[in-house]
Amino acid sequence: MVPEEILRSLVVENTTKLVMIVMDGVGGVPVRGKTELEASKTPNLDRLAARSACGLIDPISYGITPGSGPSHLALFGYDPFRYEIGRGVMEALGIGLTLTRESLAARGNFATINEEGMIVDRRAGRISTEKNRELCEVLQREIREIDGIQVFVYPGKEHRFVIVFKGEGLRDELTDADPQKEGLKAKGTEALRLEAQKTADIINQYIKKATDVLKPFKPANTVLLRGFSKVPEIPSMRERYKIKPAAIATYPMYRGLARLVGMEILPSGETPKEEVEALRRNYDRFDFFYIHFKKSDMAGEDGDFKKKVKAIEEVDRLLPSILKLNPDVLVITGDHSTPSILKSHSWHPNPILLYSKYIRPDEVKRFTERDCRRGELGRFPATEILPLMLANGLRLKKFGA
Amino acid sequence: MVPEEILRSLVVENTTKLVMIVMDGVGGVPVRGKTELEASKTPNLDRLAARSACGLIDPISYGITPGSGPSHLALFGYDPFRYEIGRGVMEALGIGLTLTRESLAARGNFATINEEGMIVDRRAGRISTEKNRELCEVLQREIREIDGIQVFVYPGKEHRFVIVFKGEGLRDELTDADPQKEGLKAKGTEALRLEAQKTADIINQYIKKATDVLKPFKPANTVLLRGFSKVPEIPSMRERYKIKPAAIATYPMYRGLARLVGMEILPSGETPKEEVEALRRNYDRFDFFYIHFKKSDMAGEDGDFKKKVKAIEEVDRLLPSILKLNPDVLVITGDHSTPSILKSHSWHPNPILLYSKYIRPDEVKRFTERDCRRGELGRFPATEILPLMLANGLRLKKFGA
Repeated sequence: MVPEEILRSLVVENTTKLVMIVMDGVGGVPVRGKTELEASKTPNLDRLAARSACGLIDPISYGITPGSGPSHLALFGYDPFRYEIGRGVMEALGIGLTLTRESLAARGNFATINEEGMIVDRRAGRISTEKNRELCEVLQREIREIDGIQVFVYPGKEHRFVIVFKGEGLRDELTDADPQKEGLKAKGTEALRLEAQKTADIINQYIKKATDVLKPFKPANTVLLRGFSKVPEIPSMRERYKIKPAAIATYPMYRGLARLVGMEILPSGETPKEEVEALRRNYDRFDFFYIHFKKSDMAGEDGDFKKKVKAIEEVDRLLPSILKLNPDVLVITGDHSTPSILKSHSWHPNPILLYSKYIRPDEVKRFTERDCRRGELGRFPATEILPLMLANGLRLKKFGA
Repeated sequence: MVPEEILRSLVVENTTKLVMIVMDGVGGVPVRGKTELEASKTPNLDRLAARSACGLIDPISYGITPGSGPSHLALFGYDPFRYEIGRGVMEALGIGLTLTRESLAARGNFATINEEGMIVDRRAGRISTEKNRELCEVLQREIREIDGIQVFVYPGKEHRFVIVFKGEGLRDELTDADPQKEGLKAKGTEALRLEAQKTADIINQYIKKATDVLKPFKPANTVLLRGFSKVPEIPSMRERYKIKPAAIATYPMYRGLARLVGMEILPSGETPKEEVEALRRNYDRFDFFYIHFKKSDMAGEDGDFKKKVKAIEEVDRLLPSILKLNPDVLVITGDHSTPSILKSHSWHPNPILLYSKYIRPDEVKRFTERDCRRGELGRFPATEILPLMLANGLRLKKFGA
């Protein structure tokens, strides 16, 4: 990876248009000899692969299975070990919250404790989402602030919620206030640095008050909080790359991630077709576009090979309308693999194709994991994609004399 | 390479079994068009390669020829630049000594000095191994300790021996007490840090006393000591990877290296067949196995192409009995290349195959340097093997949310 300061010093402005298409979790592992991509009919992707430079990208590193946070940071050219996005922030982004520098977010569970304060059910018997909403309303009404710090509670599914503390001086060097095991006493959070002590006190006061408020609501008679985190200080893509970036994504989490690196979020309908429509509509206003297609990952997580094939084929059918825009640089890849046999994210690399006027087309004729492996780009870390896109968009000057 | 702390935070326990087979020095350079691997008949390795993900590993880095210490550390997932094993320690491990935190080891030569103390023969005319034994006994009898530090001398071949100083507070920041040139005066060791001064004094007293004791034994009338080193503080594989590791190796040096990273050493006979037998016998007791096959390296060092082919074919014949154990993850590779035309270790990468339920088989159908290059895994550093094995054994959780 080029050191950040050096890359920045090489970036120049240009009018070229760069498009990055991310098919979430697209990579797979063979089932009866074929991966989902290999089993898909993708005439448009294949035709483009034949005119492109192809390769395989590692989202993070050999053997490492990434969450969506680190894998997207890498796609956007940020070192995922340097910029970490905590669990609380990811959960908040996932439900569409906008966080500021003053926000401290955490993931919450409604849970059950007995009279000695011992956790007997970490999920409060998986209460209904409706009950959850009701409890969040109660908490929100009863506890609005602690020591001048505002508190906001947002329901999720079943026993899950997101909590955001807001005010000056909050820190996130805190242990989880959730032992993640039953049969233990619920204890508060602890400060990992002296500077976080005040924040820890506020959170622990909150937990105590919430437990009082929830007393009548057994089994949901306490809260377990974890993943305390603030938005990391990330330089924007605009300052790093001198581009004007926009994001099109149907899921809040990806919009949130894009916002973290300073992309403008474009309004779009829910279907892939509507996403491409949003791209077309806004094509003149920006010069970098990130389009996220979610369905391939969802199908993989469901272990549904055929559904994943369909999701891939749907994107393939939309490709001609993207190509019609005639982008100067087009990248198609995935953020991580989600093989349907694993029903989860995995560590396997993803195929990538890079199209521009200045690539050396290779012998790759299909957009699959095993075909792209033989491509010009070789196997490389995802963090290198952005420099490659900038170069192909003639947006990087020479390094050194 | 993933930062050590991050990798550690991702490791989870599982019951999967991981096996790493190391064919020492297996990689070669073509002689009349074929490397040793290419000239070998390896039906079992080839059949397995066809069902595996293959690649090429660099033991350390492009162009770097490793000793057995760094190349094995890398195979075990340790950064070989961070953890260094000194010459003295390697020599001690090589003759099967067990070192503790209080041991300081060095390599010794019997040598000849003239009356002015100038070195006239660094190897004392390559005295016989028998004479060496006799001299070591004399030294051991005459000098048992210096200032409370115990001294132990162990004969090697011809003029070579190993010396171990044992006691509290010994340091290894010391220069060699061996100019490695004839025609110079033998001088003692020098401390590279103030804290090592006391150790330097003790060693220099020893050299002086030894030279007095050896006076009647010309040409072996002094000792030259170098490679002063202590066992580095290496976190064990158990704490790093939450595995229970065991090693099977016929040579003391590899057993010693495995012990350094906390593997249990399994008793085994001398032949490859007996090594596989030891694996079978102990298969239930551990979940990570390192099996070392030495003969390919020895044949390479001898410059004996045909003998190396035979050594490779011998391992190939044993493969079915290893596969019968049905490991969840199996890696076969080498620690470094030992091309018979070089008669020494070399910098060339080694083929690797990785077999598990979760790999994408590639088109590689033979386990050779040139075939494996076209594999799914690409060309990558040896330090990435362990994370890959853990991932395939479902022993790493997701990084980030």
